[in-house]
Amino acid sequence: MKKRVAIIGAGPSGLAQLRAFEAARRAGEEIPELVCFEKQSDWGGQWNYSWRTGLDENGEPVHSSMYRYLWSNGPKECLEFADYSFEEHFGRPIPSYPPRAVLHDYIAGRVARSDVRKYIRFCTPVRWVSYSEETGRFTVTAKDLIKDEHQVEDFDYVVVANGHFSVPNVPSFEGLEFFPGRVMHAHDFRVADEFAGKRLLMIGASYSAEDIGTQCIKYGATSITFSYRTKPMGFDWPAGFEERPLLEKLVGNTAYFKDGSDTEVDAIIFCTGYKHTYPFLPDDLRLKSHNCLYPAGIYKGIFWQSNPNLIYLGMQDQYYTFNMFDAQAWYARDYMMGKLALPGPEEQEADIAKWLAYQDTLTNPFEAIDFQTEYVRELLAATDYPRLDVDKVAELFKEWEHHKMEGILTYRDRSYRSTITGTLSPAHHTTWMKAMDDSLQAFMGLPQAAE
Amino acid sequence: MKKRVAIIGAGPSGLAQLRAFEAARRAGEEIPELVCFEKQSDWGGQWNYSWRTGLDENGEPVHSSMYRYLWSNGPKECLEFADYSFEEHFGRPIPSYPPRAVLHDYIAGRVARSDVRKYIRFCTPVRWVSYSEETGRFTVTAKDLIKDEHQVEDFDYVVVANGHFSVPNVPSFEGLEFFPGRVMHAHDFRVADEFAGKRLLMIGASYSAEDIGTQCIKYGATSITFSYRTKPMGFDWPAGFEERPLLEKLVGNTAYFKDGSDTEVDAIIFCTGYKHTYPFLPDDLRLKSHNCLYPAGIYKGIFWQSNPNLIYLGMQDQYYTFNMFDAQAWYARDYMMGKLALPGPEEQEADIAKWLAYQDTLTNPFEAIDFQTEYVRELLAATDYPRLDVDKVAELFKEWEHHKMEGILTYRDRSYRSTITGTLSPAHHTTWMKAMDDSLQAFMGLPQAAE
Repeated sequence: MKKRVAIIGAGPSGLAQLRAFEAARRAGEEIPELVCFEKQSDWGGQWNYSWRTGLDENGEPVHSSMYRYLWSNGPKECLEFADYSFEEHFGRPIPSYPPRAVLHDYIAGRVARSDVRKYIRFCTPVRWVSYSEETGRFTVTAKDLIKDEHQVEDFDYVVVANGHFSVPNVPSFEGLEFFPGRVMHAHDFRVADEFAGKRLLMIGASYSAEDIGTQCIKYGATSITFSYRTKPMGFDWPAGFEERPLLEKLVGNTAYFKDGSDTEVDAIIFCTGYKHTYPFLPDDLRLKSHNCLYPAGIYKGIFWQSNPNLIYLGMQDQYYTFNMFDAQAWYARDYMMGKLALPGPEEQEADIAKWLAYQDTLTNPFEAIDFQTEYVRELLAATDYPRLDVDKVAELFKEWEHHKMEGILTYRDRSYRSTITGTLSPAHHTTWMKAMDDSLQAFMGLPQAAE
Repeated sequence: MKKRVAIIGAGPSGLAQLRAFEAARRAGEEIPELVCFEKQSDWGGQWNYSWRTGLDENGEPVHSSMYRYLWSNGPKECLEFADYSFEEHFGRPIPSYPPRAVLHDYIAGRVARSDVRKYIRFCTPVRWVSYSEETGRFTVTAKDLIKDEHQVEDFDYVVVANGHFSVPNVPSFEGLEFFPGRVMHAHDFRVADEFAGKRLLMIGASYSAEDIGTQCIKYGATSITFSYRTKPMGFDWPAGFEERPLLEKLVGNTAYFKDGSDTEVDAIIFCTGYKHTYPFLPDDLRLKSHNCLYPAGIYKGIFWQSNPNLIYLGMQDQYYTFNMFDAQAWYARDYMMGKLALPGPEEQEADIAKWLAYQDTLTNPFEAIDFQTEYVRELLAATDYPRLDVDKVAELFKEWEHHKMEGILTYRDRSYRSTITGTLSPAHHTTWMKAMDDSLQAFMGLPQAAE
């Protein structure tokens, strides 16, 4: 009997898994039976933008944290698929920092050409997974939201690819219950226009704070006050931005900070990260981790230690994204197809311990980039995924870090060379700060669709 | 062995069930073992206000649709507990339309004095309920969110009291994905101040639209445009309000309506109701209903027809609220304690059919009030719940309807007579439109707490 594989989620990681199997099928190999469960009505995961917040049209938590005017915050050359270049997809070179719609088109384009949509059950969130020692199989309970009915089926492997940037981490502060304005998490941020003319307080000092803050200024916010817990981001902030220590409390619309300073604000955005959340997994199968480069408990960052037929994809904090998910998916595929054996428990444990010890030594982003580069390199070496020059990718990441320090509002105007095609990206026709139309048409310089 | 009862939810309905059992216990009867599962960290259900929206601190969907400046939109005399009057709780008569904090104090006060908190497991949402024909018992799987662990226990009865005003119904309209402002459902509405100076579009023509619209004008919104699907609310709207037919589409920030008219708006609030949602119930135990006065499939509006040991509380659309939940909870209690037998399937079916046929005849709110009055009267007649004069309550509801038609901004300044104590409520010291402080202290005319 054919083995059966359940893939939970049709975002970048789940799609990478489908693409990995499809590549094997096209190479003439027999692949297992695939069922991909997707909560949303379309694929793309985070990249499936919706104006909705909170709960979606089916009463499920909105998955995506994507916002209307998001542009890539890293060079596209760092996330390029080795088996499907940007140039192949768009038919010509494009600039290095594409907006949301362009990246979505690229991801969806690869899988649309791979004929894998047939494996996906949309509007079908997984409710529960259990494992039977007796049969050695998993039972997956999912809900068909359209038919309003549950499905129960058995599988030999379960691939958990639901992401870990969907469930917001939202601490509390004294006085929030009386604050006379909007209080929200970055997860619910959609349209920067809403904050034109407003004084914003953003709690957090990582990617969401930096990116939503700069975007809001671009769209007319009066001022951005960032509040950090550990240390400031330290960019050379233009007028309109400031960094302060952690918020202590609010009294009316006045924010008081740990250094004794205060300021009036009109709205508050929590940029305080996300929680690993797997409500469909029982206690003994569930990854428990904060956001980090190497969560404990999964061998090669993929295989659940006590039961490697449970596979996690994309659960790391990420410099590498799409191509790292590919590297993991190809590796996981080869294990599920019996082409790659895993070592015994002790060797797995030692390997994990080695990576965790290495992780503990990291002190800055440059070392973190090297760490993840080594991780991806090791996965790539074991499979037939097309050649990806991770040393070049690592160099690009480091250049990008420098470019951000040189100008947090201008780094997106830079160009980089594709490690896949060797082509240097053209400069965009408009600088990021002046590019107010983020549509695919505008970005590609195509005629606009009629209203 | 003692029977075991699982109660899902510690809001008004679940608390009514606990209070009902406690009343029996105090009367010297032996009661079953009770476990009340509550997702939130405190009791009160909808009345447990939080500044949070979307997902809560534990990653669960925020339950409450309560907003910061909510005042009762009906006379408190219509929802008064027969076994615990407002006068008993507050030690003196209070005005008829209390704000949120005052009503919360009243509900919580009754159960705090009843010593039932010990039965409640907070931060513990129920994940799954299954029924075994073999054992005749239910297995309840719940998640302790603090310990991050699942609990699995068996029960003889399950009382579903999780409410049906938590999961928003949000239709879509053309152009929403490009609307340059906030789009939200009433479920996420918290602080009216956010909309000062804004032109609001509110889609819907029921309680949420009417109440959030008037509240936003009170707190400085520039204008409110209500959009109705079936018919306008028809109040004699003051300047600043208007009613239009259903929204057709949005182009930028211009809203186009079915009658060909258009207007510019700054934010959109969906007041489009809620969905009955029981994600923890399998297909054969799950109530499927829209919001109505008599959902099909539950005998006496309480007992799941094919398995009456599964009990639903508060699943009706509501004129009557707290005291109706009491009537249901006392009835359910007597069934669970073996003091009240249910008729056979055919008689149950005939009774349900009778109510559904009656429901079909209803053409206006006055008839609907009479309908629910008859329903509550029938439940009350069967138990020892203290005397509640439902004819007087029905009269109050009808007066209230007239008062709303006479002045949608002034009806909350009216006074009514308690059907329990006979006392006429005092007028409030400030009219609703001028009462900007909704704290318990301000309402009760008490000295304000120091900052």
